[in-house]
This record gives sequence, C-alpha cells and structure tokens, in this order.
Amino acid sequence: SQECADQGDLTAVYVSDAQFNRNIFFDTSPQAVSLYLLYNHWAMQMIVYVFIFVDLALALFEDPAVIPMPIWGTSLVEMICLIVFTARLFHYAKVIPRIRFWKDPKNICIIVIILLSLIDIIIYGSLKSTGYNAVRWSRVLRPLLLVNVTEGRQLRRAFRSIRNALPQILYVFFLFMFSMLLFSLMALKLFGKRNLFTVDGEPYFTNFLDIVFDLYVLVTTANSPDVMMPAYNYNSFFALFFILYILINTYIFMSVFLAVVYNNYKKHLKEEVRQLVKSKRQKMLRAFAVLQQPGSGEELVVSQENWNQLVHLVQPDISNAHRELLWSISDDCNKSHIGKLAFVQLPDLLNIQVITMKSRPHPLHIWFPLLYDSSVSRLLRHAVKHKAFVYIYDLIILVNAIFIGLDEENPLIAYAEWAFLALYLLEILLKLYTWEPRAFFAKHQFWNWFDSVIIVAALVGAIVNLCIKSSDGYTSRQILDIVLILRVLRLIRVVDSIKRFRTIINTLIKIGPTILTFGQLILVVYYIFAMVGMELFKEKVKYLEADSTDPYKDSCGTPLLRGTTFAKNNYCKNNFNNVVSSFILLLELTVVNQWHDILSASVSHVSARLFFVFFHIVVVIIIINIFVAFILEAFFVEYTVEKSDLQTSLEKKIEELELSVDKYLLQKQLSCPFFCLRAQQSVHGFKAVWLYNNLFHLFFSGYKTVDGLLQRMFEADLSLEDADDMDDPNFSNITFDSV
Amino acid sequence: SQECADQGDLTAVYVSDAQFNRNIFFDTSPQAVSLYLLYNHWAMQMIVYVFIFVDLALALFEDPAVIPMPIWGTSLVEMICLIVFTARLFHYAKVIPRIRFWKDPKNICIIVIILLSLIDIIIYGSLKSTGYNAVRWSRVLRPLLLVNVTEGRQLRRAFRSIRNALPQILYVFFLFMFSMLLFSLMALKLFGKRNLFTVDGEPYFTNFLDIVFDLYVLVTTANSPDVMMPAYNYNSFFALFFILYILINTYIFMSVFLAVVYNNYKKHLKEEVRQLVKSKRQKMLRAFAVLQQPGSGEELVVSQENWNQLVHLVQPDISNAHRELLWSISDDCNKSHIGKLAFVQLPDLLNIQVITMKSRPHPLHIWFPLLYDSSVSRLLRHAVKHKAFVYIYDLIILVNAIFIGLDEENPLIAYAEWAFLALYLLEILLKLYTWEPRAFFAKHQFWNWFDSVIIVAALVGAIVNLCIKSSDGYTSRQILDIVLILRVLRLIRVVDSIKRFRTIINTLIKIGPTILTFGQLILVVYYIFAMVGMELFKEKVKYLEADSTDPYKDSCGTPLLRGTTFAKNNYCKNNFNNVVSSFILLLELTVVNQWHDILSASVSHVSARLFFVFFHIVVVIIIINIFVAFILEAFFVEYTVEKSDLQTSLEKKIEELELSVDKYLLQKQLSCPFFCLRAQQSVHGFKAVWLYNNLFHLFFSGYKTVDGLLQRMFEADLSLEDADDMDDPNFSNITFDSV
Repeated sequence: SQECADQGDLTAVYVSDAQFNRNIFFDTSPQAVSLYLLYNHWAMQMIVYVFIFVDLALALFEDPAVIPMPIWGTSLVEMICLIVFTARLFHYAKVIPRIRFWKDPKNICIIVIILLSLIDIIIYGSLKSTGYNAVRWSRVLRPLLLVNVTEGRQLRRAFRSIRNALPQILYVFFLFMFSMLLFSLMALKLFGKRNLFTVDGEPYFTNFLDIVFDLYVLVTTANSPDVMMPAYNYNSFFALFFILYILINTYIFMSVFLAVVYNNYKKHLKEEVRQLVKSKRQKMLRAFAVLQQPGSGEELVVSQENWNQLVHLVQPDISNAHRELLWSISDDCNKSHIGKLAFVQLPDLLNIQVITMKSRPHPLHIWFPLLYDSSVSRLLRHAVKHKAFVYIYDLIILVNAIFIGLDEENPLIAYAEWAFLALYLLEILLKLYTWEPRAFFAKHQFWNWFDSVIIVAALVGAIVNLCIKSSDGYTSRQILDIVLILRVLRLIRVVDSIKRFRTIINTLIKIGPTILTFGQLILVVYYIFAMVGMELFKEKVKYLEADSTDPYKDSCGTPLLRGTTFAKNNYCKNNFNNVVSSFILLLELTVVNQWHDILSASVSHVSARLFFVFFHIVVVIIIINIFVAFILEAFFVEYTVEKSDLQTSLEKKIEELELSVDKYLLQKQLSCPFFCLRAQQSVHGFKAVWLYNNLFHLFFSGYKTVDGLLQRMFEADLSLEDADDMDDPNFSNITFDSV
Repeated sequence: SQECADQGDLTAVYVSDAQFNRNIFFDTSPQAVSLYLLYNHWAMQMIVYVFIFVDLALALFEDPAVIPMPIWGTSLVEMICLIVFTARLFHYAKVIPRIRFWKDPKNICIIVIILLSLIDIIIYGSLKSTGYNAVRWSRVLRPLLLVNVTEGRQLRRAFRSIRNALPQILYVFFLFMFSMLLFSLMALKLFGKRNLFTVDGEPYFTNFLDIVFDLYVLVTTANSPDVMMPAYNYNSFFALFFILYILINTYIFMSVFLAVVYNNYKKHLKEEVRQLVKSKRQKMLRAFAVLQQPGSGEELVVSQENWNQLVHLVQPDISNAHRELLWSISDDCNKSHIGKLAFVQLPDLLNIQVITMKSRPHPLHIWFPLLYDSSVSRLLRHAVKHKAFVYIYDLIILVNAIFIGLDEENPLIAYAEWAFLALYLLEILLKLYTWEPRAFFAKHQFWNWFDSVIIVAALVGAIVNLCIKSSDGYTSRQILDIVLILRVLRLIRVVDSIKRFRTIINTLIKIGPTILTFGQLILVVYYIFAMVGMELFKEKVKYLEADSTDPYKDSCGTPLLRGTTFAKNNYCKNNFNNVVSSFILLLELTVVNQWHDILSASVSHVSARLFFVFFHIVVVIIIINIFVAFILEAFFVEYTVEKSDLQTSLEKKIEELELSVDKYLLQKQLSCPFFCLRAQQSVHGFKAVWLYNNLFHLFFSGYKTVDGLLQRMFEADLSLEDADDMDDPNFSNITFDSV
C-alpha cells in the first residue's frame, strides 16, 4: 500500500510536470519524489521569489540610496537572501541525480552568482571600513537570479528567443550601420565646409563621429527637425538629404528590424514549443507505464479508478462534475478504461479552464420565501435583469464623468458625488438581491469584483476624508487623491457594455500573463543598466529643491550644465542618483524622445554616448520589437486561429451529455444567474450548462497557462508532427538517465 | 485574313490584360480593339502621367508660390491639362460600351474633378481680376486624378484596403480615445489643484482639453519627459501615472493598431488578389474560346502555331529560346497542342522573368584572336575572374572611404582621389576586357551599370571641376557637391560583396515597386493636406534671411512667436508659405518629433490642433502602419514562402531540356561570363543555362510585377480554390456584357 501511494505520487508528479511544462529530471525514489513535491510547492516557490525581490530591492537602501541604510544592514539582509538561495539549491540537489545537477548551467550560474556576491560583500565591507572607495559590482548579477531559478522558464525562453534571433538581427544592423556611415560621410562632405552653425552656436556637421551620433539620434527621431534646420535654412534642397535618410534608415530599416525580429522570434518559439510538446508526451508515457494494466486484446489501458485517483492527486480541488466531464471526453466509447492515446491528452484537458459552479437558490429565497417571491420582488428582479437597467447605469456613469470633470470644491458637485456613490451602491445591492451572492462573487466574475471593490473603497475613502475634514478642518491630499482616482476608475465599466470593446479588452487580458514575462525581461535589463549607470554617472547631476542655496541650483548643481537645454527644461531629476530615478530615466530613454538631451547632461561624454546607444539597441531595437511581435502574433491568433481539437471535443461532449444549456433562460435572462449576461463575453464563447439536476454550472473559458496559449498559436503546424511522434515505434521506449 | 488578324488582336489583348491584370470591359468590335490597343499604349499612358505631373506641379507657381507666375499663365496650363484628361476620357468612352462607361465611378469622378476645376478657375480668375480675395479650393481635387485614372490600379487597391480596414481601426481608436480621456480626467484631478507650473511658467494640467491634447502628444512621444517633469519634480510617485499611461497607450495600443491594420490589410488584399486571379482566368478562357480547335477526343485545344502567333503578338520582343521554353512547359507531353488548363497558365508564365542572352565571343577575340588568347592575356583574364580581385577592390574601397573622410583640400588627398578614380576606371576596363561588353552591360546587371555610371560621372565631374578651377581660380560649390556625393556613393558597392547583405538588399529591391505605390499614396495625402494647410496657415510664419530688417526677424516675422521654442530653435522655415516647405513640414510631422512645437507656431490654435491631430491619425496611425505591415509581409514571404509551382516547373524544364548548367564553369568561374559571379544573388537562385550550342543564356529571376508578388504571397491559400473554379461547370460559360 505504501508502494502504491508512492507510485501514485510519482504518476501525479509526471502529470503535473506535463501540465505545467516542468522539465526536471528528478530521482524516482519515494524520498526524492516527496522532496520534489515539496520543491514544487507554491509556498516554496513564493519564498524564493520573495527573497529575490528583497535582494533586488536592496538597491533602494544601498549607496546611492533612496533610503540610506548602514552597510552592515544591507550586507546582512543580502547574506540572508544568499543563504535562502543556497538552501533552495541544496534542496534541488537532493531532488535530482548528482550528475544532472552539475551538468545544468542554471545551477552553475546560481552558484557563481552566490559566490561572487559573497566575495563582493566581503571586499566592499573591508574596503569601506578601512576608508577606501569601492564599487558594488556584483549587483549587476542579481537580476540574473530571476532568469536562472527553476521557475523562470518563461523568462529563459524569452532570452533564448532573443539569442537565437541575434545573428539575423546583427546582419541587418551592420547593413544599417553601413548606410548610416555612408550618410554621415556624405553629410561631412556636404555641410562640413559651409560654415553653418546650430542653434546653440556650435559648428554644424564638422566632426565625423559627432555626425554619426547625430544621425543615429535622427533614426530614433529624437532630434528630428533640429538636426536638419541649419542645412535647410541654408538651402531648401538639402532637405532632400534628410528626407532620404529618414525614409531609408528610420522607416525602411526599422521596419526590417521588426520583420527580422518577428520572423525569428516566431520560428524559434515554434521550435521550443515543439520540444515542450514532445517532452510532455514523454512524461505522460512514463506515467502511463506506471499505471498500465492489460486491457481487452493486446492493448494496455488505464482503468477509470486509477485515472480518478490520479486526477485527484494532481488537482485535489477539482469538482466531481468537472472530473467526470474530463473522463467522458477521454473514454469516448464508455469502456471504463482508456488507452495510451487518450491518457496522453490528460494535461491538455486539465489545462483547459472549466469553471464549475453550484447553482444555489438565493439565500433570501430560503429565509423569506414569501417576501422574495412576492410580485413586487419579482418585478424588481425582472427590472434589474432587463437590458434597460444596464443602459440606465451607463448613462449615470457618463453623467458622473461630466461631474467629475467639474470643480469638486463646489458644494453642489460634492453633494452630487455622494448621490452618485449612493446610486452605485444601490446598483450592487440590487444585483446582490437579484442574483445569488456566491455566484455574483465567483472567481471569474471580474467586473463584479471590480465594481464592488472600487465602490466600497471609494465609500471608505469618502467617509475617512469626511471624518478628517470635520475633525481637523482640512482635507488630506493623499486620501483625496485616492478618492479621485477611484472615482475616475469607476468610469472604466462603460467599456464592458460595448461588445466590440469587450473583444479587444479580452484579447488584451488574455495576453496579460505573457506581458508579465516581458515585464520581467525589462526588469532584468533595466536593473543591469541601472546598476552600471549608477556606478558611472551617480551625482553628476543633482536635483535641488527650490529652497536650496546651491549656487548652481538652476543648472542641476554643476557649472557644466549652465544654460543647457537639460537645465532649462528642468530635467535635473532625470539622473542616476538612486535606483528609482535611474529606472524612470531608463524608461524615458526607452520612449526615446529627448534622449540626446538627457544624455548630454552626463559629463563623461563618450562613455555616456556608448552607454545610451547600447541601451537603445538592446531595449528599443530588440526587446520592444519582440514585444510588438508578440502582441501582433497574439492578436492574429485571437482573430484567426480556430479552436483546438480538444476544446471542440469538450464542447461537443458538454452538448452530448444532453445537459445542454437552457437556451430559453440564456436568451431571456430571466432566472439565469448573473453571469449569463456575460455569456457572449469570451472570444471562445462561454458555455453554461445545467449539470446534475440544475445543481452545477460548467463554464468553459480557454487556456489557463501561457504555454497553453503558445501551443495554441502553433497548433496547426504541430498537430501533424505530433501524430507522427505517436506512431514512432521507438517512442514509448524513451528512457531518461534518471530512470 | 483581316478577320483573322482582328481575332489575333483580340486574343492578344485578352492575354496581355490577363498578364497585367487590367480589368476593362472593352468593346470587341475590331475598331474598338485597335482603339483599345492604342489606349493601352505606353506612350499614351506616359502622356497622361506627364500631364497629371504638370497639373500637380502647378502648385509651385500658384499663389503662395515658390516661383510666382501670373494667374493667366497657370490657368492656361491647367486648361491644357484638363483638355488632355478630357481627351483621354473620350478615348476611353470610345473603347468601352456606353452603359459601362457611365456605371464606372472612376469616370464620374474624373468628370466631376474636371468640371469643378473649370468652375474654380473661372470664379478665381474673375474674382481676382475684380480685386476680391479668392481661394483655389479645387486644387485639393488634383491628386485624386492619380487615383482615378485607369492606370492607378495599385493605388486604388491600397485605398480600398484602407477603407475596408477602417471600421476595425475605428473600434480600437475609440477604445484608445476612451483610455486617453480617462487618463486626462485623472490628470486633471491629480495635478490641477496642485499649483504646478510648466517650464514656460504656464499653469500645469488645469484645463481638460489642454490635458487631452498634451496626453495625445505624449502618445506620439513628442513631449516625452517634458510633460511629466513638473509632476515628477513635485513627487516621484507621480511618475507612475505617466509610466502606466505610456505603457498602455503608447506601447500596447500602438501595437494593437499595427496588429489590426496588418491583419485587415492582409485579409482584404487576399480577397482582392483572389478576384484578380478569377478575372484573369475568365479572360484567358475567352481567349481560348477564340483560338480553340477540336483536338483528339472531345477536348478542345490550341495548336502550337496559334500559340506562337499569340505570344508573338503579346510580347513582340520575346526571344525564340524563351518562347520555346514556355511552350515546352505548357505542352508537357509533346503533343504540339495544349488544352484549356495549360493555356490558362500563359500570363503567369509570361510574368516570370526569364532573361535570354546571347553568349557571344568577346569582340577582341574576333578582332585580335592571337593577342586575346595569348598566355599573358589569359592570365590577366584569369586574375580578373579570381575572387582575390574582388577582395582587393573591396580593400581599395575601404581605404578610399578613409581618404574621403579626410580633408579634401589637402593636396595629397586630392591627388590620391585621382589615383582612386584611375583604379576604378582600370577595374571597369579590365572587366570589359574579360567579359563580353554586351553581357557586361545587360539590362539586369544592376551593379555593373551602377559602377560604370558612378565612375564615369565622377570622372566627368572631376574634370569639369578642374577646368573651372584652372580658368576661374575658384571651385564651383555645386559641382564639387556632386563630385563628393558620387565619391561616397561608390562605397555602396562593398555591400554587394557580402552575401548576407545581398539577400537583404535584394528583398528591399524586390519590394521597391510596391514602395512606389505607397509613395503615390503618401503624395496624394500630403498634397491634400498641403493645399488645405496653405489656405489655412499661409504667411502666419515667415522665414526671414539674416540680412532682413524686419523688427520681428528673430520671431519669424510675427510678434506672437517672440520667445517661443519655435522661434528659438530656428524653425521659421517650417511653414505653409509654399508647396515645397509645406511638404517638408508634413514630413516633419510624419516623423512626429517636436510636432507640438511646430504646430504651436500656427496662430489659430484650435484649427491647427485639429488639423495636426487629423494628419497624425491619417498618416502615422493608418498609412505608416500599412507601410510597416507591407514590409513585414514582404519579408515573411521572402523568408518563408516556397517557390510557386510554375517557377519549379520552369526550373525543372530547364534541367529536363538537358541544356543544364555547366556546373564546372559556375563553380570555377573560369570562362563563365561575368554574371556567373552573381549566380547566388537572387533569393530564388538564378539559373544559367547553355542553350542551342552555347549561344544563349537563360536567367530566371522571379516575378516582374507587383501583382505577381502579391499573388505569390497568397498562393498557398488560393491554389485550392482556383482548382475549384476550374472544375466549376458554369465557369466556361461566363459572359460579359460587352460580348
């Protein structure tokens, strides 16, 4: 029995690894398996991310700091983080075979990062305590932890995509540089000898390297008319030179960059997803090998009982209705056992989001049946369910928008605000009266949660504000800010009423998780650039408050910037003096505009130029283009790709079960629970199903994971090959080193 | 016999219409056919375009003019243009049936444009002569002629694509506007009451409409850090507001715009190309119906003789070798007649570019056989053909680049320039000595032509320059400029030596013609905006030469601009005072940077803002995105799409004919003519073929026309449906009104 439990654990681990695309070759001994389960526990993963976050956040407290802390304090915290990472690594070493551990570059990376950080802490501490100057160079390595932890799969994949696209990007980049150099040479020859001057009185286009830099900035459009004006003022024909330059380098080459990045990104992602699908199959075949029993004929099968146990182990919170639905899809012919092919589908089935929901009577209906069923109450509920109710509230929101735009210090407007708040509260209460509260606040009812949280928060804020005002006699600016923001956020709800907007918003929400991966990618790159930038440029530019007595207050605390555009435009706060302002500065550089002005503030000229050009190439040309490529691809998928086979068979099965949607209810929206209103919401189309004498609803709403979305992207190309894999006679004999 | 000739004409017209995708339902009477042939003659089309060009160029001479001309002069020229357009329209009316003529919106458009222009000329002339003010409003209509002439097919298609994509773009745009309005409202509430000021001392974010405009400008990134600085300086946390705004509106929404534009553009283009393919088939079936003879069995066929005559009529300059190759592809089984299916392919076959070239002995070989075949001569030729020769000259070019970068007034450098010129001349002469001159200067030898023209022009320029210098004692700046530009252009040749660069460049050259269509599109839009802009904003801003005595010289001739960024940055020449500066200004607005500054110069505030926002939406959001979409698509096609069936069968046939490539020659590049060096140049791969005892070369280099490229883009999707069309029993019975 113990052995059985162990075997169950093992297969459950295989299935959940397949489901979440984990690729860890763990030891299959019972101890290792239970350690592995612990390793994958969400709490353990959470701890790792919390400590990575703490480690990264240390930059706020280290010199140059936002909030200064003594060196021993930050060092201590960093040591604790390093200990946690080491412990996590030890845990990992216990889970997988030793040889695997040392072969994995991820682990080597983490070990190197930990060791280098330790060395750096010691050197820095001892140098500082003896009064020497020192640089915390190991901070550049910190964000690499995000990439190298076991959970950073998505991020690693993004980095691999970039690395693979790099050669192609480089060829285009060299051609682009060549074109830029030719234009620079031409500019030198055409304008250099003409004694022209820029607005600042500098000689115009006389130094080759300056020209190259100016023309590079022109590609980013940041100095667009300025760089042209002296030549254009001299002779209108010279505008032709710049028009040609912009056409070729800004429009054509930048589009070619996007094309190359997009094309390569797609190609390599496809390859990666193919590998994922393959290894998922392998894991499921290993799980099958553990559970298999001889069936009728030669076929090996898995019984329904074993399958149920397995699903229960993998996903303990799955509802019976959901599990039975999945089984009935797998066991198409009702044989109460399934073969290899059907078994392998399990992780995909589990990855399809099916929302189960009990359809309960309204509590008021139980407590006060007569009152709740009275004709007035019925009329009220009917009214709330009517379309007009939605329209009326859309109108109220629009009127509210106008009131928000008016001056809130006018007492009339302030009173109106209370009236609006009351109206919104009334709306929520009416809806709660009409629909069953637990259904109204179900996990997937995004807009209900959104409305309620915003309204309740606004109410609390308004009351707190009122209290403070009546007690102290003045308004707290912070709380008022929050109240005002909440007021504006309320208006977002209008979007949900317009169908065309909903589809666009839903697509955006779908690709949300992947945008988070890009967020991590940007974080890693920004952090590295911020650390380097802080070491190179800190305190070169100072932001001085208005009451400062510094003689160079108007030129950012340095005589070098007196009279520059930088100082004139009040850009002093755009500096590398702490990690927060560094990040904001890097964002401004990503947006590109004025970046040449921002960089001109850095006193060390050449290193600043190199730093910024390199940043531009990495972030704007590569990462932003990959971001655009991903959004393009995601939108195309949403617009064009058909539902996957599994999705269709799920829907078919739901209909086959003859527990079909009560269409009358859905159309009339009479006694249907609230979410029926949103029935057409999803791009895939929801399905509301009465199951087990009206006790359950099953919703079907697409894929849970990013990998699911990715696999769906390339499904058309993959399905055929995968079928080949299944026929491959060697396929079921694949062995791992760890087996 | 006359009837036969007429019939031949008719079929030839069908085939060439199919080949060039002309969709004109002309009368089939012999007179109409010959008129139709005249109508399609390249000279006639050229005349139309020349007069459209003259009509558009009139804007240079009309008030506000670059070169002023009296009103009667421009009116006279415009009248002549209008007469030409009317004559062309009359010609068209003679060619097609009357009912077709009046049904076609293109013709109605042209008639309306001509009539309105006439009315405008008369009103304007009479008002001006009596001293009143008048507006030449009909000039806005002129570029529409480009769209509505029969030859403007590509342009019309581009406009149709935009029109079809418009609804989808609008939905996203409304959502984007909604998000912008919400952020504006929030900004008003957060920053309006804080008494902040911009750099110019204006109150910061206090007026809702100003905020909306500022945030719209932020989407274009043109006021990127500036708009944020007051809030950021006040409190670092407020940067979050702008970061969120930029992320959502600049990055996500702009990518979604691209995705929507791209997706819709692709979808509609596909549909259009499908229609094209269909009508091409129809035309070919009608041609077949004319030429068909009973063959063996029930099948109707076209004999080789008729086919040859037809091809000769359609393409009089086709070589015999080329024609026979095409026949042998069509007549796969050597039956000397072909059926319907093979016949229908003819226009596609004609659209595949096959370059025929006689392989002649070198003229020196004929004139001085002994000398030319002497061992020294052979060694020389061998050396020129060697790879090292190319490398040596690449090195020379690089050294030359450095010399160009140095100061040309140094006498040593000036002498070196003569040396380089001599070296380049020597190169061309050596190549002409080695390869047969007519092969060297064949039509498709782009780089040979490029080199020779640049070098000869540089030589002429240098000599002219020398003459002027020695006679007058000073250098002519214009001629020197040209010489310098030619010098730099020479460097481009390095690109051709690097294979990776060649593929990218070839793709760019391939999509060149379609970029021209976009050029026309931009011209139409720019012209309309320029005309409107000139009427609205002319003379609001003046560019004054340095020696001007205007009191407002430093503020562009108007007291309103004193002290503004516009005046400070010397932007005075960015105005609507004539058509050239208007076009350059519109280009600057397309590049987007500083556009809010440029527009702030226009004194009438609201109309200027509306004008510029509308321009931004039309040009940047729609047209530039379509441009990017097209480049993306073209690159994907070049990277991924396989060769078409026809292309493959052409190549197969070339090999089948056993006139196969002399591989030894190709590899060793010994006695192979010069172009073998470029054999791997094309993306499709060239094929060099010895044909008819080594007298001919056949090259194969992809499609000739834009439509060919487009059809290739969507071939995978189209081929199946087209096969359906062919099986359609009703298909051969399609009748046109004109038949």
